[in-house]
Amino acid sequence: MSVLRKELFDLPPGVIYLDGNSLGPLTKQVAARLTQLVTDEWGNGLIRSWNKAGWMAQPQRVGDMIAPLLGAPAASVMLGDTLSIKVYQALSAALELRPERRVVLTDSGNFPTDLYMAQGLLQSLDRGYELRIVAPEQVSAALDERVAAVLLTQVDYRTGRLHDMQAITQRAQAVGAVTIWDLAHSAGAIPLALEQAHCEFAVGCTYKYLNGGPGAPAFIYVRPDLIERVRPCLAGWLGHAAPFAFDPDYRPAASIERMRVGTPPVLQLAALEAALAVWTDVDMQALRRASVALAERFIAEVEARCPALTLASPRDPEQRGSQVSFSFDQGYAVMQALIARGVIGDFRAPDIMRFGFTPLYLDEGDIVAAVDALQVILDGELWRAPEYQVTQAVT
Amino acid sequence: MSVLRKELFDLPPGVIYLDGNSLGPLTKQVAARLTQLVTDEWGNGLIRSWNKAGWMAQPQRVGDMIAPLLGAPAASVMLGDTLSIKVYQALSAALELRPERRVVLTDSGNFPTDLYMAQGLLQSLDRGYELRIVAPEQVSAALDERVAAVLLTQVDYRTGRLHDMQAITQRAQAVGAVTIWDLAHSAGAIPLALEQAHCEFAVGCTYKYLNGGPGAPAFIYVRPDLIERVRPCLAGWLGHAAPFAFDPDYRPAASIERMRVGTPPVLQLAALEAALAVWTDVDMQALRRASVALAERFIAEVEARCPALTLASPRDPEQRGSQVSFSFDQGYAVMQALIARGVIGDFRAPDIMRFGFTPLYLDEGDIVAAVDALQVILDGELWRAPEYQVTQAVT
Repeated sequence: MSVLRKELFDLPPGVIYLDGNSLGPLTKQVAARLTQLVTDEWGNGLIRSWNKAGWMAQPQRVGDMIAPLLGAPAASVMLGDTLSIKVYQALSAALELRPERRVVLTDSGNFPTDLYMAQGLLQSLDRGYELRIVAPEQVSAALDERVAAVLLTQVDYRTGRLHDMQAITQRAQAVGAVTIWDLAHSAGAIPLALEQAHCEFAVGCTYKYLNGGPGAPAFIYVRPDLIERVRPCLAGWLGHAAPFAFDPDYRPAASIERMRVGTPPVLQLAALEAALAVWTDVDMQALRRASVALAERFIAEVEARCPALTLASPRDPEQRGSQVSFSFDQGYAVMQALIARGVIGDFRAPDIMRFGFTPLYLDEGDIVAAVDALQVILDGELWRAPEYQVTQAVT
Repeated sequence: MSVLRKELFDLPPGVIYLDGNSLGPLTKQVAARLTQLVTDEWGNGLIRSWNKAGWMAQPQRVGDMIAPLLGAPAASVMLGDTLSIKVYQALSAALELRPERRVVLTDSGNFPTDLYMAQGLLQSLDRGYELRIVAPEQVSAALDERVAAVLLTQVDYRTGRLHDMQAITQRAQAVGAVTIWDLAHSAGAIPLALEQAHCEFAVGCTYKYLNGGPGAPAFIYVRPDLIERVRPCLAGWLGHAAPFAFDPDYRPAASIERMRVGTPPVLQLAALEAALAVWTDVDMQALRRASVALAERFIAEVEARCPALTLASPRDPEQRGSQVSFSFDQGYAVMQALIARGVIGDFRAPDIMRFGFTPLYLDEGDIVAAVDALQVILDGELWRAPEYQVTQAVT
């Protein structure tokens, strides 16, 4: 059964959107839900809506909506903050679970903020920690009894290279290391089985494949049997066992609630909650098959018609997430020319053109049309136009 | 000149809102701005809006809108995260500015999350730090050469008691302690002069008197001459000097941008930015005079007509923020009965009824009408009705 459901998305006419791996598009229920929240719940309900409109329960409620997409049980996922903060929260807790060890292992394919947050934490702790950065294919071999925690992004943001979560987690557990998976490019993109993988922590963002909107909050998963042993260094009042008792001493909630910190971003959470409606009855295995089919078709078309581009992603679909990258020294200009024609992907320095495949709103016709545009630009060297030869901007 | 501008607010008919110190009400431009952001910038602009719609610059742009309300210069205030996170960020940086000292001083009137975040940080650092909690009136006397940082909420969330920022900051600097002011109940409520006070850090939230909406992000101020010495322990990629270079090593931005962490909450920031329009041409001294007049009238009316209630705030308006609290052992039930009549304040355990005074949308007629309702409830003991004798809920 097809997972295609374009009719639930508000994509602009004439656009082929291959950047859902960076910012998911708007879904149809979101604008109305936000208007209702703002005018009715905030405007009329005012302070009362914290209880009456369920704002206070929103982070765990949305966590329970996301949990099935992660292969996680109910009450194991909490929403809030940014992914950077959730990385810090997970890593800090992981280190306290292995107080005698001093190595944090990660790989050079990790997203920079994961590396930076680890650097910031380890430097603050000032206890001789080492952040060991190895190549992605060397992670398993680098896992030894000195490693307190291994922090990896499952899908490489540049190449789409996919780590084997099950195998690496098993290897980590064999040497007694705690595993933290960053699922930024996994959640909503590939089938996940956190419970089965038995990893200790996972974190991720919700504005990519989960379409939560710009600035949508992050999530954190804690393996349920561990939650009462996890000490939140970010000991915010909403993670307290009784936040409204206003005790002077912090006492963490017994549940995943302890991973909450401050006041939840109610507007962002409402947008995300509405956006998650598109996942009803999506079979993640079927989604994965559709994603692989789109990506394989894209690679075949590009390689046949655009020989100047070099595949920068693993060729084996088993080793790729839901994106495909090609390298080209004029990739930035080519991407600007593509976007001007309504085919939206993105670019990562120094020469990576990224294309995300999201089968909920993309079909093979879109893929062929995208490569048509790409071929026209390359064959005609249209990317040489001065308007595309601009300084690289932020995105 | 009056600061009253009720016409800019979308208050529900029949409501007298005395809880703007907890969640500010909706202002008229917000719903339309959010719809525009969602449908046009996100829906049509998609990933391009990070640059074209100015999303990436939003945190500092909004910081520059708030700075004048804090008496702070341009480019000294950054938006993002929650107040709890900003407390952690400021305190961590403060401790690194005084590496040889081991005491963090705070007071028992501080909001619990400030205490909890400090406890979480100090426990993580595990270097023999002491969190010293004294009574609010003992802060100055407790400041000595062992204090690394003093962390205070200027206005007590229960009583409205106001610290003398200038005097305490001067005393702290005389003993070499770093000062962090939490302005949760100050920003938009009282005149502030951070630059003149010369404190090192300030943090605050924007969903109270600044009307940013539920879950609106926090702000952090860093004294400009210090910014390049501040090491962000929460070293997120958007605080990097060149976030889109994707360097493996963290190198903080040279400006207040280094206090950024992860992806900004674009929807919340847009709501806040629209809400800040009501501050155009507000004279903060005039606002303060109006706030004091409302509070004095409220106290006089309550004390004349509701003798069962006991003033829990300082009587001297110079020592109060923009709220007044009364204690009453049945305060929770009385507040429920008041809210049922459209007079919305709130309650803080064990027996505090809080009333916030926000002269942008409240006048003396509202104050008298509020006390009318309170008197009816108390004289008739209407709070004894079973529907008000419920278990205290979260708000």
